[in-house]
Amino acid sequence: MGLFTKDIKTMNDLFVHQLKDIYYAEKRIVGALPTMIEKTTSPELRQAFEKHLAETKNHVKRVEQVFQMHGVEAEAVTCPAIDGIIKEADEVAGEVADKKVLDAALIAAAQAVEHYEMARYGTLIAWAKELGRDDCASVLKQNLVEESAADKKLTAIAETRVNRIAA
Amino acid sequence: MGLFTKDIKTMNDLFVHQLKDIYYAEKRIVGALPTMIEKTTSPELRQAFEKHLAETKNHVKRVEQVFQMHGVEAEAVTCPAIDGIIKEADEVAGEVADKKVLDAALIAAAQAVEHYEMARYGTLIAWAKELGRDDCASVLKQNLVEESAADKKLTAIAETRVNRIAA
Repeated sequence: MGLFTKDIKTMNDLFVHQLKDIYYAEKRIVGALPTMIEKTTSPELRQAFEKHLAETKNHVKRVEQVFQMHGVEAEAVTCPAIDGIIKEADEVAGEVADKKVLDAALIAAAQAVEHYEMARYGTLIAWAKELGRDDCASVLKQNLVEESAADKKLTAIAETRVNRIAA
Repeated sequence: MGLFTKDIKTMNDLFVHQLKDIYYAEKRIVGALPTMIEKTTSPELRQAFEKHLAETKNHVKRVEQVFQMHGVEAEAVTCPAIDGIIKEADEVAGEVADKKVLDAALIAAAQAVEHYEMARYGTLIAWAKELGRDDCASVLKQNLVEESAADKKLTAIAETRVNRIAA
């Protein structure tokens, strides 16, 4: 969340603020994924990140759509949580030399991002419904489903990686 | 993660570093929950936070146990991710006047914390197994199960809250 929390008085204010928070987060992730794509040496991890970069660009558009449906101008507010998660991801991506260890670290960083987004979309969907905006909830749900699928895909890649090392 | 990532060379280094990261996070949460308990006016939310504070104190002990089992001194490294998540929680808890809105914001903040921890424990358990430390994985799993249950409980409280408002 971050700035402007003094202006939060109603559930609608809270919903709009959280929407600005996830808007900021999605745009930060669009900025962070190319570095992760560049760093990984695993073809399947690169493919998963590339697919998720395309999805994330679409998530930004869906959040803009929800702003418009709700009659609010699309605006981002600084979100210290995603800044912290991405800061960790950047540090790890920059420092680990061993490719196997680097890939494990990249998967972990990406899963922390996915879990953050899953928590936020879960909340946003509940609040949209509470505000009688099932239409907004439905659009946000599409993003949640894709975040959740990306997280499961990363778990599968992590397991394949370990099995390959063990083989 | 944060500092010292230059020293990460092996999967074992990565595991130990992540353990130090979650150790820092759990201790920060022990520090943050009392403010959340103080702020809420919902008896069931207070009870859930109090129960989770007791659990979190136990999570710190379990992480210390894993350090010991793994033959490493228990040490915390600054984790910008949990700092960011808790910063958001503090800001919201400090600023929202309406009790109903405040409780919704507190639940959202707590669920972001839970999801962060679920992601980190999921990773730690996978890495412990990869390192042949099923014994460490088993202890870490106990923390994961309680984080996941706490998250589900918060969702249930959020739903009850909304149903009560609608009634």
